[in-house]
Amino acid sequence: MELGELIRYARGDEPADLLIRDARVVDVLSGEIVETNVAVVRSRIVGLGDYEARETIDLEGAYLAPGLIDAHVHIESSLVTPSEFARAVVPRGTTTVVTDPHEIANVLGLDGIRFMFESAKDGPLSMFVMASSCVPATAMETNGAMLRSYDLASFKTDPWVLGLAEVMNFPGVVQGDGEVLDKLREFEGLVLDGHCPGLTGKELMAYAAAGIGSDHECTTVEEAREKLRLGMTIFIREATNARNLKDLLPLVTPRNQHRICFCTDDRQPADLLDHGHIDYMIRTAIAEGIDPLTALRMATWNPADYFRLHDRGAVTPGRRADLIAFADLEAPAPHLVWRGGRLVARDGEMVVPRPDRRPYPLRSTINVAWDRVDLAIPAAGASLRVIGVVPDQLVTESLVAEPTVVDGLAVADPERDLLKLAVIERHRASGAVGLGFVRGFGLERGALASSVAHDHHNLVVVGADDGSMLTAARHAASLGGGMVVAEGDEILAALALPLAGLMSERRVAGVREDLDRTLAAAHRLGTPLHDPFMAMSFLGLEVIPSLKLTDQGLVDVDRFEIVPLWAG
Amino acid sequence: MELGELIRYARGDEPADLLIRDARVVDVLSGEIVETNVAVVRSRIVGLGDYEARETIDLEGAYLAPGLIDAHVHIESSLVTPSEFARAVVPRGTTTVVTDPHEIANVLGLDGIRFMFESAKDGPLSMFVMASSCVPATAMETNGAMLRSYDLASFKTDPWVLGLAEVMNFPGVVQGDGEVLDKLREFEGLVLDGHCPGLTGKELMAYAAAGIGSDHECTTVEEAREKLRLGMTIFIREATNARNLKDLLPLVTPRNQHRICFCTDDRQPADLLDHGHIDYMIRTAIAEGIDPLTALRMATWNPADYFRLHDRGAVTPGRRADLIAFADLEAPAPHLVWRGGRLVARDGEMVVPRPDRRPYPLRSTINVAWDRVDLAIPAAGASLRVIGVVPDQLVTESLVAEPTVVDGLAVADPERDLLKLAVIERHRASGAVGLGFVRGFGLERGALASSVAHDHHNLVVVGADDGSMLTAARHAASLGGGMVVAEGDEILAALALPLAGLMSERRVAGVREDLDRTLAAAHRLGTPLHDPFMAMSFLGLEVIPSLKLTDQGLVDVDRFEIVPLWAG
Repeated sequence: MELGELIRYARGDEPADLLIRDARVVDVLSGEIVETNVAVVRSRIVGLGDYEARETIDLEGAYLAPGLIDAHVHIESSLVTPSEFARAVVPRGTTTVVTDPHEIANVLGLDGIRFMFESAKDGPLSMFVMASSCVPATAMETNGAMLRSYDLASFKTDPWVLGLAEVMNFPGVVQGDGEVLDKLREFEGLVLDGHCPGLTGKELMAYAAAGIGSDHECTTVEEAREKLRLGMTIFIREATNARNLKDLLPLVTPRNQHRICFCTDDRQPADLLDHGHIDYMIRTAIAEGIDPLTALRMATWNPADYFRLHDRGAVTPGRRADLIAFADLEAPAPHLVWRGGRLVARDGEMVVPRPDRRPYPLRSTINVAWDRVDLAIPAAGASLRVIGVVPDQLVTESLVAEPTVVDGLAVADPERDLLKLAVIERHRASGAVGLGFVRGFGLERGALASSVAHDHHNLVVVGADDGSMLTAARHAASLGGGMVVAEGDEILAALALPLAGLMSERRVAGVREDLDRTLAAAHRLGTPLHDPFMAMSFLGLEVIPSLKLTDQGLVDVDRFEIVPLWAG
Repeated sequence: MELGELIRYARGDEPADLLIRDARVVDVLSGEIVETNVAVVRSRIVGLGDYEARETIDLEGAYLAPGLIDAHVHIESSLVTPSEFARAVVPRGTTTVVTDPHEIANVLGLDGIRFMFESAKDGPLSMFVMASSCVPATAMETNGAMLRSYDLASFKTDPWVLGLAEVMNFPGVVQGDGEVLDKLREFEGLVLDGHCPGLTGKELMAYAAAGIGSDHECTTVEEAREKLRLGMTIFIREATNARNLKDLLPLVTPRNQHRICFCTDDRQPADLLDHGHIDYMIRTAIAEGIDPLTALRMATWNPADYFRLHDRGAVTPGRRADLIAFADLEAPAPHLVWRGGRLVARDGEMVVPRPDRRPYPLRSTINVAWDRVDLAIPAAGASLRVIGVVPDQLVTESLVAEPTVVDGLAVADPERDLLKLAVIERHRASGAVGLGFVRGFGLERGALASSVAHDHHNLVVVGADDGSMLTAARHAASLGGGMVVAEGDEILAALALPLAGLMSERRVAGVREDLDRTLAAAHRLGTPLHDPFMAMSFLGLEVIPSLKLTDQGLVDVDRFEIVPLWAG
């Protein structure tokens, strides 16, 4: 809005567009509740107090807070497009997200990021982007694209780009890798997000000294406290497969709470629809004893301040009218959500139509040399390296186990909780296949396959036998990507994800139903994991400790190198 | 420092330049004290912990905190140049100041600002500049220059310029004045500092809606709280003539303390040398019951965050090694000060030489049409408007009194505490003279004159008789500007301020001695005011309520218009 106009409305010379009356405004700056009215003109708050307006809504004493902000999310993990993701989270009170589109960027490069921007346009959610810093995550994988500092430079002038996304290649930073440093230099002066699970001491010192300002990978209070002291802002994460919220809440003190934000990182549709988004984290934090004003501040002002989004994060004149109303301060559940002064959701439902836009074309992305895919593992030693799944965490254990050998081949042995894991390269038809074993996955029979496998997004397959594994993997490929449960030659359930092999083009409710059916089929095969597909999708992420599998082989993340399957 | 190099030092691969050992580091981010060592290479902190270094200093358990930041100061009020000001405040722990050079800008325009930049170069203090927004302050005065939005635009690209300085013309903002709005538009997206004493309600709403982010003019907790709620950061001020610190400290709560900074605005040399600068505010705040970590944070991280100075404000790797060491957390008095890794002060004394630089030329600025100056006030009514001085405050009262009439002229009457006040235009030889009366100044005889008169800096004269007033004013002019005490034809004491009529070219200790002598002479004439020159210098500032005098006449600040001397 033009400045002179804004001032006139603030003075009250002309009626506002909207007056939100009888509100208990959550003042996240002063940490107070203020009983007042809020006047809105177009996208802006123009004043607090008594104003004339063309339209009035009476909150009858309900609370009014700034719209919620997710400090770090990969929208692709919702399995739907940004425009559908918006329709899942906006009714929950989220009006701004800071995203790293590195899932699709690993598949389709700049075209993929372009797709995310396109899908977010005209929608009810402010989607900011951090330029994906690690495409590919490391050289120990094959992915679909490579973004170098040259490629990222052009993003800097985009008003929706805030900085450089999570620098997951923390060994690269610590070791002064030229390519990584070029990206940091390119984005000097902007926000640099971090990702450094378990990094400590001098190595963490080097990472922080490089100017990296945040971390969302902390799993303990001690880890977070060390990072806070070095000047890093802590994003407490509650992802579907990485639930750190309750563990980290004891970190929060009145003195450091201004340095802590909330983020969801990766959250699948059922979690979003059933439990919520940032609102869920706020309610959980309050239930765990965090003061409500502090919890709300960590989801509003703190991320706005960290990301230098000076136009939002508080209910003050001149700022964007991104607002949520809720009845219970002890368990905020927004029943009204405004974005830029427009009422966009009521009682958990969107009240604005989907933008009428032509779908943005994406090319097919599954390209596998099936004739070169062989899952057999010849027995070649007395002990195997085995990935140990840790429920609800992205970290894995690095185990060693005796192989079960049949006909000279090391095979899956469900009775010993030893399943076979394969990562089949699917971008370049290279024929590369990484093979290994996993413990803690718990399948009794059959196999799961998925084209979602952070961050390279090759086909990841877990199974009790090679036949089921190939059935599942081939079907996932035939869908253009997706999640499949198979047993023998039979497909038990599937969710198609034809957009880059990561997302559905469908609505979130339908995707959720298919995912539920697929998960149910997986659970019938015996896995006890809450979301085995989400768990599986992180078994290939070689930047999170300890042992992971890519199409290039087993990666010892602590040593940051490929290691043989056979330990002895 | 180059990024790769910084990382190598942070890793500890090579010895640092300096290790500050056995420090209790004040972590203003987490609100904790951390016992550790701090490694420094060139201007940067590279790490905390055990490091090798070429030079070591053992703090023996003393506290180590970030260098202090003054959020808003007019260096001209110290009566010395920026390079000398630095030598007064750096030993006190101040390593960064955010200045508004609008005193000299009102006299010499862009040349004046240029002089301030020049004087600060190579010095031991980071001097950031906010572009002076109100030159002249209003149209109700005559000053020496005019800076329009066009003139200020060029500052935006200077790395030492952070935004737009205190927008004192708050009526102009509220009324949507085109010239004022042009400046706000020009600096949109940068930091916009405010100045709005007593502004409240819808008018304050309009001011905040315009994006103005701070205020340093609050005198009560209620006023500050209203501004905090509207999103403004509060700078608590302790100037020589505007002492708001103790009144405002009750504002500070654990929830809002991140929105509050310290500033000194205008502080004369004796106050700086005897009591201190921001360090004095910290000690006073702690003595008044503010937690030391909070007090230190308000003087370090908070202003760094507000002004988006992302390279300082905390003791963390990668940030500037602007550091202070002190023994007593309950009364921080820095005994060591580093700026950019260099030890610049020890035990209250500078340990680095003055920069060897050629003086920057400034032209003479006193230009008065003496033949048109007449201080006589013909009696023309039954009651006069009289400015009532409020000790230690910039605000004045608007009083009404009967005149004392002698020979048809309204004259000063010290027995009734009614002194004559004159503002003589000194930039353009226009002959303009504003005349009025003041109560509460307390001179029994003689007169004071000064070329320091915010912000137009005309010659301001207070006296018990016209003869003494003219003696004092003419002598001030003959010095090229300065502060003078006279009685009859005799000069009792004087301080020369030939740089723009605002500053001495001499060292701060000598200036302070002359000022002491001049103040003593003034006190001998009967004034009870702590610093009558500082008080006098604000009697002409027509943007602070209630009644002020410029060369154009009496200004009713609340009505924001010139009013007649005669009230009836």
